[in-house]
Amino acid sequence: MPETVFRVDQSKSMREQDVPGHNRWHPDIPPAAEVRPGDEFRIECKDWTDGQVRDDDSANDVRDMVLDYNHMLSGPIHVAGAEPGDLLVVDYLDLGPARTLGQARGTEPGEGWGYTGIFAKSNGGGFLTDHFPEPGKAIWDFHGREATSRHLPGVRIASNVHAGLAGCAPSADLLAVWNRREQRLIDTDPQRVPPLALPPLEPGNLLGALSGDDRDRAAREAARTVPPREHGGNVDIKNLGIGSRVYYPVYVPGAKFSIGDLHFAQGDGEISFCGAVEMGGYADIHVDLIKDGMNKYQTDMPIFEPGRVEPRYTEFVSFIGISVDEAGEQHYMNATIAYRRACLSAIEYLKQFGYTGEQAYLILCAAPIEGRVSGIVDIPNACCSLYLPTGIFDVDIRPNADGPTRTDRGQCALAT
Amino acid sequence: MPETVFRVDQSKSMREQDVPGHNRWHPDIPPAAEVRPGDEFRIECKDWTDGQVRDDDSANDVRDMVLDYNHMLSGPIHVAGAEPGDLLVVDYLDLGPARTLGQARGTEPGEGWGYTGIFAKSNGGGFLTDHFPEPGKAIWDFHGREATSRHLPGVRIASNVHAGLAGCAPSADLLAVWNRREQRLIDTDPQRVPPLALPPLEPGNLLGALSGDDRDRAAREAARTVPPREHGGNVDIKNLGIGSRVYYPVYVPGAKFSIGDLHFAQGDGEISFCGAVEMGGYADIHVDLIKDGMNKYQTDMPIFEPGRVEPRYTEFVSFIGISVDEAGEQHYMNATIAYRRACLSAIEYLKQFGYTGEQAYLILCAAPIEGRVSGIVDIPNACCSLYLPTGIFDVDIRPNADGPTRTDRGQCALAT
Amino acid sequence: MPETVFRVDQSKSMREQDVPGHNRWHPDIPPAAEVRPGDEFRIECKDWTDGQVRDDDSANDVRDMVLDYNHMLSGPIHVAGAEPGDLLVVDYLDLGPARTLGQARGTEPGEGWGYTGIFAKSNGGGFLTDHFPEPGKAIWDFHGREATSRHLPGVRIASNVHAGLAGCAPSADLLAVWNRREQRLIDTDPQRVPPLALPPLEPGNLLGALSGDDRDRAAREAARTVPPREHGGNVDIKNLGIGSRVYYPVYVPGAKFSIGDLHFAQGDGEISFCGAVEMGGYADIHVDLIKDGMNKYQTDMPIFEPGRVEPRYTEFVSFIGISVDEAGEQHYMNATIAYRRACLSAIEYLKQFGYTGEQAYLILCAAPIEGRVSGIVDIPNACCSLYLPTGIFDVDIRPNADGPTRTDRGQCALAT
Amino acid sequence: MPETVFRVDQSKSMREQDVPGHNRWHPDIPPAAEVRPGDEFRIECKDWTDGQVRDDDSANDVRDMVLDYNHMLSGPIHVAGAEPGDLLVVDYLDLGPARTLGQARGTEPGEGWGYTGIFAKSNGGGFLTDHFPEPGKAIWDFHGREATSRHLPGVRIASNVHAGLAGCAPSADLLAVWNRREQRLIDTDPQRVPPLALPPLEPGNLLGALSGDDRDRAAREAARTVPPREHGGNVDIKNLGIGSRVYYPVYVPGAKFSIGDLHFAQGDGEISFCGAVEMGGYADIHVDLIKDGMNKYQTDMPIFEPGRVEPRYTEFVSFIGISVDEAGEQHYMNATIAYRRACLSAIEYLKQFGYTGEQAYLILCAAPIEGRVSGIVDIPNACCSLYLPTGIFDVDIRPNADGPTRTDRGQCALAT
Repeated sequence: MPETVFRVDQSKSMREQDVPGHNRWHPDIPPAAEVRPGDEFRIECKDWTDGQVRDDDSANDVRDMVLDYNHMLSGPIHVAGAEPGDLLVVDYLDLGPARTLGQARGTEPGEGWGYTGIFAKSNGGGFLTDHFPEPGKAIWDFHGREATSRHLPGVRIASNVHAGLAGCAPSADLLAVWNRREQRLIDTDPQRVPPLALPPLEPGNLLGALSGDDRDRAAREAARTVPPREHGGNVDIKNLGIGSRVYYPVYVPGAKFSIGDLHFAQGDGEISFCGAVEMGGYADIHVDLIKDGMNKYQTDMPIFEPGRVEPRYTEFVSFIGISVDEAGEQHYMNATIAYRRACLSAIEYLKQFGYTGEQAYLILCAAPIEGRVSGIVDIPNACCSLYLPTGIFDVDIRPNADGPTRTDRGQCALAT
Repeated sequence: MPETVFRVDQSKSMREQDVPGHNRWHPDIPPAAEVRPGDEFRIECKDWTDGQVRDDDSANDVRDMVLDYNHMLSGPIHVAGAEPGDLLVVDYLDLGPARTLGQARGTEPGEGWGYTGIFAKSNGGGFLTDHFPEPGKAIWDFHGREATSRHLPGVRIASNVHAGLAGCAPSADLLAVWNRREQRLIDTDPQRVPPLALPPLEPGNLLGALSGDDRDRAAREAARTVPPREHGGNVDIKNLGIGSRVYYPVYVPGAKFSIGDLHFAQGDGEISFCGAVEMGGYADIHVDLIKDGMNKYQTDMPIFEPGRVEPRYTEFVSFIGISVDEAGEQHYMNATIAYRRACLSAIEYLKQFGYTGEQAYLILCAAPIEGRVSGIVDIPNACCSLYLPTGIFDVDIRPNADGPTRTDRGQCALAT
Repeated sequence: MPETVFRVDQSKSMREQDVPGHNRWHPDIPPAAEVRPGDEFRIECKDWTDGQVRDDDSANDVRDMVLDYNHMLSGPIHVAGAEPGDLLVVDYLDLGPARTLGQARGTEPGEGWGYTGIFAKSNGGGFLTDHFPEPGKAIWDFHGREATSRHLPGVRIASNVHAGLAGCAPSADLLAVWNRREQRLIDTDPQRVPPLALPPLEPGNLLGALSGDDRDRAAREAARTVPPREHGGNVDIKNLGIGSRVYYPVYVPGAKFSIGDLHFAQGDGEISFCGAVEMGGYADIHVDLIKDGMNKYQTDMPIFEPGRVEPRYTEFVSFIGISVDEAGEQHYMNATIAYRRACLSAIEYLKQFGYTGEQAYLILCAAPIEGRVSGIVDIPNACCSLYLPTGIFDVDIRPNADGPTRTDRGQCALAT
Repeated sequence: MPETVFRVDQSKSMREQDVPGHNRWHPDIPPAAEVRPGDEFRIECKDWTDGQVRDDDSANDVRDMVLDYNHMLSGPIHVAGAEPGDLLVVDYLDLGPARTLGQARGTEPGEGWGYTGIFAKSNGGGFLTDHFPEPGKAIWDFHGREATSRHLPGVRIASNVHAGLAGCAPSADLLAVWNRREQRLIDTDPQRVPPLALPPLEPGNLLGALSGDDRDRAAREAARTVPPREHGGNVDIKNLGIGSRVYYPVYVPGAKFSIGDLHFAQGDGEISFCGAVEMGGYADIHVDLIKDGMNKYQTDMPIFEPGRVEPRYTEFVSFIGISVDEAGEQHYMNATIAYRRACLSAIEYLKQFGYTGEQAYLILCAAPIEGRVSGIVDIPNACCSLYLPTGIFDVDIRPNADGPTRTDRGQCALAT
């Protein structure tokens, strides 16, 4: 029976592992391991940036990040008997960081610490990049299944470990669809900063054991890992944690399942591009198959059941956004703008307690906030809401007659 | 001490009440009642359509709905001492339908029954109007704090009563802002069906005790009640139920708080335009003030704390949508499309169990689904997810190896 | 279809109602109403003492309580087709007080207020009667689905309405078993104050429509309503609230279901004898039958499924008790003593915040505490724990390095 | 900074570790490690029996268990600055088994498996020993944070790791109190099987680094570890899991904190003597002090706050017990008997689905049941209830009109 089927030495790049992973999606990447339906096994993962972020007090590493290396994935895992049209049933039995409390803190993310970053507008940006165009960073210290950050004093969050990114390889046809539709979007504004989408890019690619001409060809076709797509991929759903079950569509023989981008914790939305508490670590999973499941359930996207152990926060201060942008312009049923406005309201609110805007932004990324589509029919305003758990703060942040008490909370790491 | 400060005789139109309410927002509508900070009182409400929907098996009433009459609101309530810039603290102490189980079922919504509707594309539409352009309806029977529908067999939902719509009157300036920005949007496509937004409209207006020239002028300026705006309004947030506390911005002296559009239950998103379990009923509330609260907390939107008694559903089958539209076109970070795709996936899924598309659509409206903004930074795809509680169904709807068991579930009410 | 099948005029004694209820258990009490399986209906109830407690600031009424009148029950309800051996399936669809916020506060419990009492040791006592031998009382004011008490400042509890007492009539045989076994216990210490158990008692009896010789004979046999027994009865389980389903054993033809002792709220244990927030009100229920259910499920006690709407409190300060009594004597696996010690620890703890012992005792009764059997095998000490929700207090009661802040909290109502 | 301050090699007895632990409570046992307030560190633990139970299908090991070796504890840990009267604040940051999924299954409990046992009446017994006098055993296989048992087919439980036993060393005076009061109890029936309590016992003792005459003397005085007492000890409270905070009274300088008896999962009550899913593993903790805390909060027992990550089960089938024993004899307010009756009812119920009584007994031990003190004042019957989560079963166990479907579920491990 397989145990750890994909090993990672955290001190080395994913490129230097005995069996390397990959950072692009392509059906031709050969399997790194093979399992059977019913198997339980461990997969180890590097953090999504392959170790580009340091445990220090400067955001220079975020500023200088080479995004073309991301996301480093572990896999593909061949599942015996899986055929296109099946659903691959993945039970997330356990997930955790690369090292835990009883082990010495290490130099790599996941070894007792993690990070949350704000990308510069000139280098990837994020949901609020027009408001926060400069890079920023918070380092989180793991205390067992909780975390604090010296860059975000007064906040303590419970862990909700999950993989931001997982899925089966696309078929050649599906890959072609992805590339076509995304290129069409790019073509509408090819010079945009940040870009509208990321086309296949040869430099920086890692395609597992693929080599030679096959690799060169695949590298020109392979999809970037940033967006979620029909196979799942980078869905960044915080509820895919311990005990959850995900039904992934299978598009190629053997499924070729890959996983990465582990998060120690995250809120709904991962609102900066590097918004979770990022780390390397492990995922313990069980796999099974529903033969012909895509047809049986008429789905071409993953379906999932959340687990039973999401941390319980039941008191929230909640913010509402509508689809009127910051300049006062009315948009039609735009939930993206509505959620952005809710985020900005929450940030403004937290600033009254002494956090800087950058700190508040980082808190919303990493904390177990809930982001909801609240009203989606009341023309012309979409309405989204953001639920901020009060239990993560060391002070009572609920509104009261006296108003907030402002405390000096310092600042997160910035570029120098 | 005030008790029921706004009374409604459900057998009559809001226009015929002793003290009528209103169906437009305008600062000049005179108060219908006065309360003081610290007061607790009851407000009674008509259903949002003022009784246009019948307890029958035809959707003709939805088809023929006069939308210009909506939403019928109870108020305005003058809060002594409230000034622009304050936050009006509203505690929702209790909410319920017009009649409960021990009373005879009546002819009006809320009198033992409620409804969920799909509006025709030619008459208002809804979130999925391109997929469901024809009118439909489900009647819900109240069983205490639960409901079932003869039009949706096999579904039983727990009540989560809340007001879809509440807020303080806008100032003249704020009203002007609303009208300007919405008109600009309308002007981009004035003939669109359904329209992009609804401008002020004299016919059908009800402005409380306002009369004569004042009324005529106000009717030409008064904002329609459909969208949520800076004062709150039609936010349709299902978590504003019993035990919740909302901090509403005050824009006019006395606050002029109004409320209506009671829902027996609803999911996140109210995904058809008439998506909740609609009814008339009552809201018991306590009010207080945070003087200068908008400045203290730097907010120009309502902030809220959810209550402790939301029904608990902890098992879900969940669906994911990305911002690729039904035709396969790629959109940039469009959470509206992503959520629509998640809704459509859920509907397709439920169809495999024997529900029609219309029935599934209605279930998603009324059931306590959770709609989440899951990923909002992974260019170019926004990612939203929809959590469908398994506990509302009489069969186990989780995926399994055998596939779904399809049962004849009939159909909802349609137009004839 | 039946609607309100048992009516109560709160301004009158249960004895003076058009159709009176009963305050003893006996199989011969004639049905007060008849329903069929599948029916939904309302039953109205007096508070358990039949109106002996007043909305004032003296505990004289508790001191002078005539316990022989309790509990006043509404029923019996004949369920067509029910036979001995069946399980009567009761869905609690809704429960509430006699009057709600929009109605004038009345003079009877349930009409906008309720009470919690400490009985004198000389008149019934309670769980901690050796520590609190004098009568006490707290009046609770209802604010919709929450309550506060002028006698317990700084506490606000969410409602969790349930019936403390419900069940089907015992058969003559079962009644005889009860009387025999309880008399045997009484005979071990017949003069004890408070008594070990309460034998049948003619004075004060009310047996519905039973009259004449039948009544006199039945009154001599009929069981008192205080203890829970095989039919359920006075189980005082706080989780039998809205949305719960209870399967009651049927012991007589027609089931003869009765209900009473409504509670606005209560913690586990109802630790004073009158420990809930007591009131009159209504229960809306649906009934069905599982034929031969006692045999099918091999049960001679009620089984139940809790509902989905219990108020959510997720932060607690918790106390532990073991079966060493207050004098330091070691008892063998005595969970009663262990829970008493946990209660006493919680009371001592609350006293450090300025509550009197009586106030703390009353808080533990009415608040949604959880009382758990934690360890029941570790000889010689049973271990019980009491979870006190922090969210009911207006200050943070969690331990910290500085110690508690003691505030003058006044006192509850006492006898004068 | 300390990391793993107490190491255990699972392949060896606690007696053979480099730094051995102890299996008796005595103030003179020297510290095995030293930490400071504010430190975070790991403690590794053997299973409570020191490896006496095997991963096989016979209960002979449980039958032949040498109870005098139990419980093997890790510690004592000296906390710098701790003085009698302080409260030691222990945050349980993480807890887990000795090996996790990615590692090879080992031969010791916690290395991928755990066990639940029924002790023979002649060797320790348990809560239901009169009903289940013979030994039994279930082996649980760990699947990440869930577990199944080949001896209990159809059951899957979520992990809720906690330490059954932890606390600070008693002072000499407190130890003397324990010994006196327990001996008085033993003296009432010294020959009882199982015994009423366990006096100090030299054979089998392990007292850490204590040796020579000191050890011999201490061994004659040292308290057995079975019961919970004023310092906490073997409280077996399932809610002391990840994220919980416990305030332990300090009775000796340096606190001398010890911990052991790790459980992968357990229900309220640990109703067989070996009722949890027992294992070796680790506890990651943070310590701090509240100086003079016992006085500040007037407590001589631990106080605790549960964590946020207890597995969520919200649907239950619940059973009620009253203090009438199995022979029909009436007891006065005996919660122990009431809870026993609730347990027996649940077991009888599960037998209708095909489980044997032994299997059902083991399920109640290990599953996340809730055991509640429901009514503790309604003379003469205490009332306890047991909430059995439906989500752990592979079939729907709720009552219905057709009755239960009985399946052959085999049997647990028995003695041969």
